[in-house]
Amino acid sequence: MAFPKLDPGQTDKKLPKDEYASAVPRMRVDLINAQYDLQSADFSVLVNLVGDDRQGCEDVVDLLHEWMDGRYIGTHYFGDPSEEVQERPYFWRYWRALPPRGRVGLFFGDFAWSLIESRFKDEFDEKSYELRLDHVRKLYAELAADGMVILNLWLHLPKAELKKRLKKAKKKPADEWRVHDVDRDMLSDYDRILPICEEMVRRTTSDSSPWHIVESTDERYRNLTVAKLILDAIENGLNRKPPPRKTAGKSASAPVADTDFRRDVLGSVDLSRSLEKDDYKKKLERYQRKIHKLSLQAAKKGVSSVLVFEGWDAAGKGGIIRRITAAISARDVRVVPIASPTEEELAHHYLWRFWRQLPPAGRMLIFDRSWYGRVLVERVEGFASDDEWSRAYDEIVDFESQLVEHGMLVRKFWLHIDADEQLARFKSREQTPYKKYKITDDDYRNRDRWDDYVVAVGEMVARTSTEQAPWILVPANNKPWARVAVLKEVCKGLESLLER
Amino acid sequence: MAFPKLDPGQTDKKLPKDEYASAVPRMRVDLINAQYDLQSADFSVLVNLVGDDRQGCEDVVDLLHEWMDGRYIGTHYFGDPSEEVQERPYFWRYWRALPPRGRVGLFFGDFAWSLIESRFKDEFDEKSYELRLDHVRKLYAELAADGMVILNLWLHLPKAELKKRLKKAKKKPADEWRVHDVDRDMLSDYDRILPICEEMVRRTTSDSSPWHIVESTDERYRNLTVAKLILDAIENGLNRKPPPRKTAGKSASAPVADTDFRRDVLGSVDLSRSLEKDDYKKKLERYQRKIHKLSLQAAKKGVSSVLVFEGWDAAGKGGIIRRITAAISARDVRVVPIASPTEEELAHHYLWRFWRQLPPAGRMLIFDRSWYGRVLVERVEGFASDDEWSRAYDEIVDFESQLVEHGMLVRKFWLHIDADEQLARFKSREQTPYKKYKITDDDYRNRDRWDDYVVAVGEMVARTSTEQAPWILVPANNKPWARVAVLKEVCKGLESLLER
Repeated sequence: MAFPKLDPGQTDKKLPKDEYASAVPRMRVDLINAQYDLQSADFSVLVNLVGDDRQGCEDVVDLLHEWMDGRYIGTHYFGDPSEEVQERPYFWRYWRALPPRGRVGLFFGDFAWSLIESRFKDEFDEKSYELRLDHVRKLYAELAADGMVILNLWLHLPKAELKKRLKKAKKKPADEWRVHDVDRDMLSDYDRILPICEEMVRRTTSDSSPWHIVESTDERYRNLTVAKLILDAIENGLNRKPPPRKTAGKSASAPVADTDFRRDVLGSVDLSRSLEKDDYKKKLERYQRKIHKLSLQAAKKGVSSVLVFEGWDAAGKGGIIRRITAAISARDVRVVPIASPTEEELAHHYLWRFWRQLPPAGRMLIFDRSWYGRVLVERVEGFASDDEWSRAYDEIVDFESQLVEHGMLVRKFWLHIDADEQLARFKSREQTPYKKYKITDDDYRNRDRWDDYVVAVGEMVARTSTEQAPWILVPANNKPWARVAVLKEVCKGLESLLER
Repeated sequence: MAFPKLDPGQTDKKLPKDEYASAVPRMRVDLINAQYDLQSADFSVLVNLVGDDRQGCEDVVDLLHEWMDGRYIGTHYFGDPSEEVQERPYFWRYWRALPPRGRVGLFFGDFAWSLIESRFKDEFDEKSYELRLDHVRKLYAELAADGMVILNLWLHLPKAELKKRLKKAKKKPADEWRVHDVDRDMLSDYDRILPICEEMVRRTTSDSSPWHIVESTDERYRNLTVAKLILDAIENGLNRKPPPRKTAGKSASAPVADTDFRRDVLGSVDLSRSLEKDDYKKKLERYQRKIHKLSLQAAKKGVSSVLVFEGWDAAGKGGIIRRITAAISARDVRVVPIASPTEEELAHHYLWRFWRQLPPAGRMLIFDRSWYGRVLVERVEGFASDDEWSRAYDEIVDFESQLVEHGMLVRKFWLHIDADEQLARFKSREQTPYKKYKITDDDYRNRDRWDDYVVAVGEMVARTSTEQAPWILVPANNKPWARVAVLKEVCKGLESLLER
């Protein structure tokens, strides 16, 4: 994609006063109307406002709050990260701030600027910088695929203009307070920082998340141009048909042909493994002690972990999870059971509700079911369109790799039982009054879909098991064996990370 | 209220194995059923699990997750407060964690324990301790009035038993890892800490938030007793009629008779105040500079502020707020416009959504409308019952006093215009295309309620204006005058706080 230079060396973008005065009222009406139409739409609009003109960015935020309906704009300023933020992967705070469908989000000083700053101060090695750029591109791509309209605005002030502005402020003390040290720094570093800005802009622009350079010399030109770009973005979003999310529905054809290979994934699990009672008690005890010790070390070193539990109904997830939590101080572990998404969660990208849960430094977070619902139940039941669940594999891999890069332990367990064992457990639960509630008609219906799930699990494991965030297939026909196997794996994972 | 001693010196509460074995299945069924019935109910259940038996508390949490449906229990462990938590008033993290209606919340190591610890370590002077106890009582009272069922459980282990347990752990290394330093500390401080526990329990118990002491010596007795208490709490809640929240509806009689006095509150505002254009420009400039400087100092010193803007429709809130934000770096100020509550917000106490917004150290937070909606629109329109809005005054005073005690600046502005000025502004907005959207039929309907609002505003100011969190009535018929008046008050407030 060809991209204009940030600073083409002209400063001729001006708008006469009368033209501005006659255009503004119309623009304000259009913006408000577009904003109201957006409210019932199935997507959100994200405006990233960045630029070498810091003061211009602040002014534009105030302007948009005046011209639009401030109640429906989610404005977020991203400054120096707090401790809470630093303890999570880099994009955590951006995910948390994303606008729900129907709203406009205004991000101000987002990762674009912090990337540039870090690059300028040489805080990155080449590899980390490339990794992060890659995550930015993937983030934009997934949000856009989910329907979000993304608009990146760069407010550019030519060097000569910046110089003029600082000079003027000095002479006219009334304006002086509006000038920050950052502006003075900007001027002195201008020639070194601009190429970094240009590179970042060039390398993160795409059709679905374009950058627009807006020259900021003339306020009137800047205001109206920004407003026009936002208006166009909302209107283009509204005029798309059909909205990309609305295409859910079950397709008959499996989009991946090689299902046999995948069936083998589960076929290779040796379901005959089992443990005697005495042996179990001894080993359970040993690994619980170990996990306890390791959890204390992890808390001390600030190493956090994310464990994911998936598996067939009645495979014994709950029992295993309790064996882990019982060994760890309540302070250091949290279980997040994943049920159907709430209304608020549905108004966001499906990964949003998982991002916001991520643990602070030193803690263990256990997901009882997880984001893999996208490629399991949502795929099999047709709650997600083929497009949606097909692209989820890469989205998930990118998500988990960000956790790993942040230093977290990521382990994913599939608890495997066979259909006979499952039926036996259902029957036994039905005999046990306090376990009856765990068996519903849905559970029996899901059994009819066993083969579909086998394919889905196979493809999931094949496409999302990575060296750093591996799937561990646990034979679970024998509960003692499964429990000890999981505890052992968690210990192994923690040890390997703590040894570093 | 008479209250039993924490440690009556007996340890005879035991349950034989067979009795336990036969009772447990029934209890699990009942708990699960109660939990499911609760889901469609209009209240939540909060279980505070505290005690001198730390290990017992951890075990009970695991047990409840096994016996109940973990997906619908919100378990929160409150350990050492993070930086994020320390920057907010004491009860901030508890408010954030409160269960929504229909759910059970399980708080583990809540403020009861942290109060005891602080008292034990002498971190409080007498006055701060009393203040905090008072806030606890008020918190329980408001949540209970809102329908929440509150159950405080104290797990008590007699000293002799604790000694036995620690001894046993030493001999049998298999159990040793379950013993923490805190348990050893507990033993050595036992005689000094128990009276503090007793005092806290005695002084925070009430009919709507009772404490129950559960002896923890015998696990079977403890488990079944805790389960029974929780079951009873849920069932009693379900059997109440009618649920307290369901009583909303407009009553004809004003519950406070002295309306004339209150009418005078607004009657005393001198609406003739105005500023000439030149004078306005000069003063606006002066106070914006000042506010800018003060905001930098506040950021540096970690002093945060909460500004509340209420007023008649078209009184000019937006314009004033923008004059403030324009003077402060976007990093240091945030505006929260308050619209109708979302589904999630409605599932909580009405103050919940305001608590969660509170700013970190050094920031300014501006509420464009606020919790005062409870005693304004909700009162006048009958969205809140007489009971609900009548008790809101005290709830609000307690809320704001916690902000002030935490060191925040709290200022509340009522922008006052008269009915003629309002009508003129409505008409003028209707003539301005981009302001038309700000005028709806509702606005005209509200005008019919003018006199009701005058009474409501009067009572609000009379009952919630305090020395530390005062209402400032701003004559706003003349916008320049109002803007400068507000800026001046904000400066004054910041200065007084920064001088300390």
